[in-house]
Amino acid sequence: MEEREPEAGMTPMDLHLGGKIHVTAAFPLNTRADLSRAYTPGVAEVSRAIAGDPSLAFTHTIKSNSVAVVTDGTAVLGLGDIGPLAAEPVMSGKAMLFNEMAGVDAFPICLDTKDADEIVRTVKLIAPVFGGINLEDISAPRCFDIEERLDAELDIPVFHDDQHGTAVVVLAALTNALRLTGRDWPDLRVVVLGAGAAGVATTKMLVSVGVRDLVVFDRAGAIHPSRRDLTGIKRRLAETTNPRRVSGDLGGVLRGADVFIGVSGPGLLRRDDLMGMARDAIVLAMANPVPEIYPDEVAGTPVTVVGTGRSDYPNQVNNVLAFPGIFRGALDAGATTINAEMKLAAARAIAGCVAPDTLEAGRIVPDVLDRRVAPAVAAAVADAARRSGVTRRIPPV
Amino acid sequence: MEEREPEAGMTPMDLHLGGKIHVTAAFPLNTRADLSRAYTPGVAEVSRAIAGDPSLAFTHTIKSNSVAVVTDGTAVLGLGDIGPLAAEPVMSGKAMLFNEMAGVDAFPICLDTKDADEIVRTVKLIAPVFGGINLEDISAPRCFDIEERLDAELDIPVFHDDQHGTAVVVLAALTNALRLTGRDWPDLRVVVLGAGAAGVATTKMLVSVGVRDLVVFDRAGAIHPSRRDLTGIKRRLAETTNPRRVSGDLGGVLRGADVFIGVSGPGLLRRDDLMGMARDAIVLAMANPVPEIYPDEVAGTPVTVVGTGRSDYPNQVNNVLAFPGIFRGALDAGATTINAEMKLAAARAIAGCVAPDTLEAGRIVPDVLDRRVAPAVAAAVADAARRSGVTRRIPPV
Repeated sequence: MEEREPEAGMTPMDLHLGGKIHVTAAFPLNTRADLSRAYTPGVAEVSRAIAGDPSLAFTHTIKSNSVAVVTDGTAVLGLGDIGPLAAEPVMSGKAMLFNEMAGVDAFPICLDTKDADEIVRTVKLIAPVFGGINLEDISAPRCFDIEERLDAELDIPVFHDDQHGTAVVVLAALTNALRLTGRDWPDLRVVVLGAGAAGVATTKMLVSVGVRDLVVFDRAGAIHPSRRDLTGIKRRLAETTNPRRVSGDLGGVLRGADVFIGVSGPGLLRRDDLMGMARDAIVLAMANPVPEIYPDEVAGTPVTVVGTGRSDYPNQVNNVLAFPGIFRGALDAGATTINAEMKLAAARAIAGCVAPDTLEAGRIVPDVLDRRVAPAVAAAVADAARRSGVTRRIPPV
Repeated sequence: MEEREPEAGMTPMDLHLGGKIHVTAAFPLNTRADLSRAYTPGVAEVSRAIAGDPSLAFTHTIKSNSVAVVTDGTAVLGLGDIGPLAAEPVMSGKAMLFNEMAGVDAFPICLDTKDADEIVRTVKLIAPVFGGINLEDISAPRCFDIEERLDAELDIPVFHDDQHGTAVVVLAALTNALRLTGRDWPDLRVVVLGAGAAGVATTKMLVSVGVRDLVVFDRAGAIHPSRRDLTGIKRRLAETTNPRRVSGDLGGVLRGADVFIGVSGPGLLRRDDLMGMARDAIVLAMANPVPEIYPDEVAGTPVTVVGTGRSDYPNQVNNVLAFPGIFRGALDAGATTINAEMKLAAARAIAGCVAPDTLEAGRIVPDVLDRRVAPAVAAAVADAARRSGVTRRIPPV
């Protein structure tokens, strides 16, 4: 296939004409000899070998290097439930990034169902050709159950990027922001706005590294045990966070806080809410494409470090720093899951890509186009997978 | 991705290490501007447009150019029910050929189920990212029902290659063999050995072009109305073929026959069976990889034209002549199905790739690596789709 060269004047619509990915041959088919080894009759030898030893699928088929980017189109970007056809550009965009950053062969799977049981069943049925499953833009709370069941029932890694990819990059950004501002996890006061996929996973990850004072805020206010409207995962959040049992409006809850993490949507945070935060406060406004607050709005507040998901401001805290390298590492190590150790290793590797002497308020994470990041993350994740004992025996090649 | 260059000494197993296909970006992501148009925030504009007009998925997503190569691994080559993992090399081989010959982005989908209802349901659920469905190596008689239901329920072409791809290349080969030997369809006596997917579709196609005297032979003998063991599709074959109501062994049924088509397996045809065929008889021994009879075994019989599916003999009558161009044409025309007119146009286009003055007993079909074939087939198929009124309105681009 010829590569299209994106020209300066092209709009996103122009650029998407004909789709954004291609499926190409890994080697040329120029002669009958090529054909007879790659296809019939030679291919029969390979199929027969795999039928005899199914583990060879992990080395001698695309399962060795492939990830399905699976969505049902229910929670796409900030657009909501736009369906599987309209979700494809986002999924293909991730597939491009998987390939460009980490050499992973990712293919979008946009499912024409919203039924959790059917999503689980379908992903299991198509799993033979995939070495990993990246769940994407599936709305909460269904996403939690779908991921948990698939991870338990499949022998390949399953990773809901909206949850864990976000949690990993937030942890990476905070790691460097704490270094910069001289703080440590146990002493932090953190407020998380948004109790969806990203909010829940980020909270869990922060608690796992030692954060003790964390309040999750949803549309109805701070989550705490006396709220009567909470079920499921929010009920569990109420039991494990908010140790000072604070309630009230966002501005009040933010008083004295060191860190604000926005994983909600635009319009929920006002600039005034930041005024009571601690000195040198840190704001990660992750809503995409419109963040909870823009970096140029914090002047005159105690906030000195701001990150967003956007490419047109410093500190782009975007999942693309995490998912390509995480799956690359999981595939390289033959991991059967992506566990907490691997996610933590990924966050530390991302943070480590900013050299200490270059660390500053406008540079707490590496550039999203920095090609060193994915290999560094992959190596750290593969190592963590091996150390934590979640790798399968890969047959010798 | 770097391309591997297959070296002369590599075995099929060597060549399959790491899989045979890659999923690559259609254009590079080198700058933040590239990223912001191909991914967030620019991608939101495209997703929003498709949500508003779903028909844009046919132009602005991979649905414009993609085909799923779907199998359940139940009838792979001559290997039988080897399962979805072991089927992958065959499906990826087809994906390579789709891309190399016709620029189609094909992806293997190997399903971990043999249940026809579940196969139909799963393919429908993953259909949003595909512009066509190539069913492959699904055992008969389940394949007939699965294809029929998917073709009826999806608005994209569904094509079971073992049936129709084989029928198309057989028709192409016979078209030229008849020219060469001065015969015409209505005067032919044809014997088809094998009543599976390929045998049934080939028979239907030959009847549609005017063949009147055709006998289908299965493991129990010639199919005719007084057989008590026939059900379903074989019962219908008994009613529509074998006008002279012949029975008996294969050698007897072949007495006086002009054409033998083998779509069965090795060991069912003996050389002696050919001795009674008409002068200048035509044999297409399509079983793969071991044909019903090898071309060098027919010396001393009335047979003068022999084709097989193999690349190491003349007249390689292989589906690769058909499927890439058929789907290319269907995608180009925006066809919603692949109908009889399109299949017939494909067969004629393949036959037409052998110039009349180069036609000879050892050259009744073009070379499988002849890059002119797929474009010629595509143009003929797209034209037939438009003329027969099975194209969707493609939104202006």
